[in-house]
Parts: sequence; structure tokens; C-alpha cells
Amino acid sequence: MSQLFSVSLKRCLHEIHCNTSGASLGPEGTMSVVRLEESRERIRTELDNTVNFWLKYSHDTVHGGFFTCIGRDGKVYDELKYVWLQGRQVWMYCRLYRTMDRFRKPEILEAAKAGGAFLRKFARVSSSSGQWKCAFCLTRDGKAVKIQRTIFSECFYIMAMDELSRVTDDKDMQLEAEQMMEQIIYWVRVDSSGLGRPQLPGDFPINSMAVPMMLLCLVQQLTEGRGQEVFQKYRELGSWCVQQILQHIQRDGTAILENVSQDKTELPGCQGRLQNPGHALEAGWFLLQYSTEWGDEELQRIAIDKFMELPYQRGWDKEHGGLFYFLDVDGHCPTQLEWSMKLWWPHCEALIAFLMAYSQTKKPELLDRFFQVFEYTFSHFPDAKSGEWFGYLTQEGKLALDFKGGPFKGFFHVPRCLYMCERILDDLLANKD
Amino acid sequence: MSQLFSVSLKRCLHEIHCNTSGASLGPEGTMSVVRLEESRERIRTELDNTVNFWLKYSHDTVHGGFFTCIGRDGKVYDELKYVWLQGRQVWMYCRLYRTMDRFRKPEILEAAKAGGAFLRKFARVSSSSGQWKCAFCLTRDGKAVKIQRTIFSECFYIMAMDELSRVTDDKDMQLEAEQMMEQIIYWVRVDSSGLGRPQLPGDFPINSMAVPMMLLCLVQQLTEGRGQEVFQKYRELGSWCVQQILQHIQRDGTAILENVSQDKTELPGCQGRLQNPGHALEAGWFLLQYSTEWGDEELQRIAIDKFMELPYQRGWDKEHGGLFYFLDVDGHCPTQLEWSMKLWWPHCEALIAFLMAYSQTKKPELLDRFFQVFEYTFSHFPDAKSGEWFGYLTQEGKLALDFKGGPFKGFFHVPRCLYMCERILDDLLANKD
Repeated sequence: MSQLFSVSLKRCLHEIHCNTSGASLGPEGTMSVVRLEESRERIRTELDNTVNFWLKYSHDTVHGGFFTCIGRDGKVYDELKYVWLQGRQVWMYCRLYRTMDRFRKPEILEAAKAGGAFLRKFARVSSSSGQWKCAFCLTRDGKAVKIQRTIFSECFYIMAMDELSRVTDDKDMQLEAEQMMEQIIYWVRVDSSGLGRPQLPGDFPINSMAVPMMLLCLVQQLTEGRGQEVFQKYRELGSWCVQQILQHIQRDGTAILENVSQDKTELPGCQGRLQNPGHALEAGWFLLQYSTEWGDEELQRIAIDKFMELPYQRGWDKEHGGLFYFLDVDGHCPTQLEWSMKLWWPHCEALIAFLMAYSQTKKPELLDRFFQVFEYTFSHFPDAKSGEWFGYLTQEGKLALDFKGGPFKGFFHVPRCLYMCERILDDLLANKD
Repeated sequence: MSQLFSVSLKRCLHEIHCNTSGASLGPEGTMSVVRLEESRERIRTELDNTVNFWLKYSHDTVHGGFFTCIGRDGKVYDELKYVWLQGRQVWMYCRLYRTMDRFRKPEILEAAKAGGAFLRKFARVSSSSGQWKCAFCLTRDGKAVKIQRTIFSECFYIMAMDELSRVTDDKDMQLEAEQMMEQIIYWVRVDSSGLGRPQLPGDFPINSMAVPMMLLCLVQQLTEGRGQEVFQKYRELGSWCVQQILQHIQRDGTAILENVSQDKTELPGCQGRLQNPGHALEAGWFLLQYSTEWGDEELQRIAIDKFMELPYQRGWDKEHGGLFYFLDVDGHCPTQLEWSMKLWWPHCEALIAFLMAYSQTKKPELLDRFFQVFEYTFSHFPDAKSGEWFGYLTQEGKLALDFKGGPFKGFFHVPRCLYMCERILDDLLANKD
């Protein structure tokens, strides 16, 4: 793939003389503009292909909702419907429909509505505590198969409902999303017993980075453009999420640890030493968005230095390229069997993180990182034959699992990454001089 | 490791002229005797080393019980105590102490007693249903961290207590094991709600091979040499377990599937198509033991043809050697990220299975299988530097995770395999002419 960034003669003839003062594209000049334009072109094409893949193969026109287990060639290999992925697909369709002209198509809107109807009809199940829980997994016709004792199915349900309410202008649906949000806030900040986990003396509450990250994402989702009332409603929660995320900076600021204690200290054992570089990078761009919204330069600096640079330094495989899935901060072998595999989604998060960081700072080293990750990602994950991306490679970069959709891979990380990067690139290139 | 089986001059000079009629070592003759003697020597040495490794590194002399997370060099990298592995270590120590003279040492007995005391004091927790459950994981000082909604912690608790009661002649402990067994039988055959899983309309009961396998193992454990009363008590259960296991022969007898429906048919989707070759091979030698006990030649044939030959044919990696962890019977990619990895324990089960099958039938192809697995196993898993075995390799046979003990690897599969193989080899070689 190194030819991806070759500067063609034709492009050279149309060189754009950009400002090198840092006000727009930064000091790296013409060559970067060309590379950025080439990467945007590739990203646009991949986004179109990805959308088409899921439009073509994932819709269940009999029972509604989306098939999520889809093989390399588009064939459904399991009819189970994973609720995280149902919610994410509704969200992604709506977001594309709402914010990108070329996806404002009835086909996409109708698919999103059908997915939302399936979720509303089947995903919510009443738990033993009398509170609403969302199932983790449904049969093709909507019967609950499994419920996780966590908040994440509910979170993706909210994302779906809020974004769908925006394109359908359905106030009841927006309200439903906010009501589910209240339930989650109660579980996280007041009493988690409704999640169904038994209270055990050795299982003290911890701060797992996924929880404040997910809530911060939902705050941004629920408040975007909604006006002062909603904004004020979630303001304190957003600030709390940021503080909770920042507590994961440990070891005198030299590492992001995935799990910390409730009093901000390192936990013992593997759980405490766990690093998930892709997750830290995702937190990085969540924090960067928040810092922009609030004009918080200190937070911007922390987001980049701690949640992007550290995971990159520790997480990039210097031998084979790509980001490790899990690492132990002291160099012990992680106990997760898949720790050394290269998964698609950490690379998606890294692309968004470094491009967003570059767009805000114009620091050339951040653009270098973006291109490094871009090179690895686009030379390893996309399937040129059947479309969409593979998700799981060995440490050496060999294909390990060949499906396009599975229990944790759906229409989400790939299109969200391509969508976000395309938009950032549009802005960057529109302001290039 | 191919020199492992080189026939040394010295050995040639002491060749044993064995009977080739099939009555003892089978038609392959002298060469096999030498190879069997060499393999027994290697197995004895490995068993001694493995026992020494765990005696040296795993005992918690402060809080009791065993550390189970032990790094490649013997260092404890996490103090959590996994209950499956506590129970298994007690069982293995006691079995070695009881049945092999060279392990009848006070050090081993005391360690087993201390482990048993830790289990009795801390592993049992009262569940919300008022029934006893065993924790899955404890803190170093015995506080419950996690409870699984399955039967397996309880099963290994029973194995530990029954075997410990044999070496200590403690009738109360034997009774406690039988009482816990009653609880498990109730969960499996009458009402599973005490396990804590919510009843969901899409989560219908299935026949997962682990359950009847585990119960059959416990029947054999509880009844061995106990006399008629206990034997009769579990007789019907043993027969039921065998029938449940046989239901996993699917696809017109061409495949062993890990999960089937309660009415003996294939389940839809990935769950239904899942194959776990190591597990099938383990079931194979469980069935073979049962067939010997009952003199059931038809079951012996099925155990070998279906539960050994099929998993070998489907599960052996013809490119890189070794047994795959998971496979899909239709050739789809499994969704388990670790599906193509080579784990130590399926190879342990294969060694026992093929050697036991050979010892009962004297069919040379079964001995060939044993040697093939032996060659792969002993050239890949043992750590010549620090002792014990590595547990997790890539498909290509490269070391992927380097610890000796982890959440699912303890003092069990390696020593059980070496112990069983040494005993079978002792019998074979004692009856060689």
C-alpha cells in the first residue's frame, strides 16, 4: 500500500500552496495536502462501500432488525441479533442520513426506522428488580437469549433512540432515550444492584474506563444542538465523566490503565495493570471533543499527551506494526488469549484520534501518526474482494477471523471512523489556505 | 524433537522381543517397545518436574490455598485464587499421593490438606436461592470475587473433597462431597433456577457436552472402590451421562458437536456448529473408561471411532500440526478469537485418549496417533528452562502466552495427562511379552 501516498504527476501540477504558519494545515506543506486529499478519497470510497455492504446483506425483511453475523462474502452465518450492534446500526444510519447529503436516502431512513422499531419492540425486558434491562442478544424473531449484568446494551439503545428521534422529529422517542439514561445514571452513581450482579465481599466497585467513556459519549449524543435545558441537565454528568476518565492516568502520568479503584489508585493484579490502547485512544478523542466544546486547553493537552501519545508509545507493535489489543503495564503476559492480536477497532479509534488532534493543533507529528496508522489499517483490514473490513488479525498481520460481522463487530467502528475522518478532512482541506 | 525417538545403540542391545500376536503390545513389535519406554521416561521426568514446580511456587503459606497465576519463571503475577484450580490441585495432589509411591510424601499430603481447608472455609457462598454455590474466584484471603452461573466450581470442589477424603479417611468430607453432588444433580436434572440465570424465552435449555462429561467424571470419582451402596446410588446417573454424551454424535455420525438440543438434534447457528476437538477427545477417554468398567464393547468402539478418530480427523492442523481449539463443522470461521490457537490441554487429552485406546485394542494406528501427538506436544509445550509447560501457542506453534498458571491453567491437565499416561505405559510395558 505504500503507493497509496505516491504523489502523482497530475497532482503535482495542481499543487496547493498552503500556509505554513500553523493557522491551517501546518508547516508540512504541499505534500501533506496531497496525502490528505488522497486519504480522503480512499476514506470516502471505503465509507460508500461499507454502507452498501450492510444495506445489501444485513437487513432482515421478515422479522425486522439487522443480521449481525455476516461472513466474508456477505452471507448470514448465524441469525442471532446482538443488541449492541442493532443499536449501533440504527445510530450510524441516522447519523449518516442526518449529516451527510449523499446518505440522505429513503432506503437508509427506512432501514433505521425498522431497526428502531425492532429494538423498541424486543430489546427491553423487565428484570427481576422491576427495572428495564435491555437484552444482550435476541433470536431472529426477537426473543431474549441473554442479558448482560452491565449497562452497555442500554447505552446503545439510547444512542439509537436519540439519533433516530432527531431524523424523525419524534419527541416521545427522545424522551424514552432520556428516561433510559436516568436508569443508567442511577445504576452507575447510586445503586448498581438492579444490574443483577450479586454483592460479594471481594468484588468491590471499581472505575472501569468503559463506563465514564460510554456515559460521556451519551451526554454528547443527548445534548448536541438540543438547547439549554437539556444541556444543563447533563452538564454535571459530563464533567463527572471527564474526571472519572482522567483518573485512569496512572504511574506518575506515564500510563493509562483500564481499571482503577474508586479512590483513584491502582488496583492489584492483572485487572489493575491492564492496558487497552485502542480504548485509551477512543477516550482521547472523546476528551478532545469535550475540550473543544468547553474551550479547555489544558484538557486538550492531556487528551493528546496522555490518551493518545502514551497508548501509541506503549501499544504500537514495533516489530510487526499495528496496535496490540491488551498489554500489561509491567510487561507481564496478559491473560486474555487474544492480547497480541490486531483488531480493526483500535485502529479506527487511532485514526480518529490522531486526525482530530492534528486538526486542532496542526502539530506535524500527529499527522505523521495518522498516516502511520492509516498505512497499516488500509493495507491490512479492507477486503478488496467482497467489501467491508476484516476485523481480526494475528500479531503478524495475518487474517485470523474472516467474518465481516460478528457478536462484537457490526456497522459501527468502521463507518464511524470513516465518517468522522472524512468530515475532519473536509474541514482541514476546506481551510487549507 | 525428532531425536526423541531415536533408537540408541544401548537400547538396541537390550531389545525386547515382544509378542506380535496382538495379545500384548501389538504387531508393531520391538521398535514400539523402545519408543514406549522412551516416552515413559520422558513422561516420568516431566511429571516429577511439574510436581516440583507447583510445590515450589504455588503454595500460599500465609493465607492458605494455592496461587494460580504463576509466570514463566514461577513468580506470582496475580494473587487471585481461581476455585476450579484450587479444587483441581487438591485432587491431583491427593491422587498422586494415593496411587503413586514416589509421591507419597508428607509435603504433598500437607499441601493437599491445606488446600482443602482453604476451599471448605472460603469457596462456598450462600446464593440468593438459599442453595450453596461455590465462588469462581477468591481474593488471596478468601473473599468471593465472582460467582459463575454454572456448575463447574462445585464440580471441582467435589473432586477435591472426595479424593481428599480418601487419603485422610474422613467420612464427613466424603459425605459433604456427596451432598454437593446432590445439589448439582438437582440443578442439572430438575431445576436450574438456583444457578442464578434468569429464565429468558430465547434461552431454552441445551445439552452442552461439558455437563454430562463433568458428571460422568464425578460418578467415576465418587464410586471408585467405594462398594455397592455408593455404586448403586450413582449407577443410573452414569448411564444417563453416557447417553447425553452420545447425543453429541451428529451429522450422520460424522461429527461431534459441542452443543445439541435437549431432543438430540442440532442447534441453529454457531452454537450448534461448534466443535471442540480437545473436549471430544477427553469425552472419548471418559467413555472408554466407562466401557471398560461395564465391559461394553460397542461403547468402546464408539468412543474410539467417534470421539477420538473424528476429532482427530477434523481437528488436527495438517499445515502446522497440533489440534485447533475450536472449529465450525461447516467450515465457517468460529467467532471465538482464539479458535486457531494450539492450547496445551487438548493435546493432554489426546495423549491420554490415544494411549488408552491403544492399550485396550492394540491397534497400531492408535499408537501412531499417540506418537504423533506426543511429538508435537513435547516439542512445543514444555519449558526446558524454568520447568512446567506453556499453555498457549499461535496456530503456527509460536509461544503466544508465556505463563505457567492462569485463570484456566493450573496444576491439572499437565500432571493428569502425565500421570495417566505413565500408568498406562507401566501396564503396557509390564505386559509386553
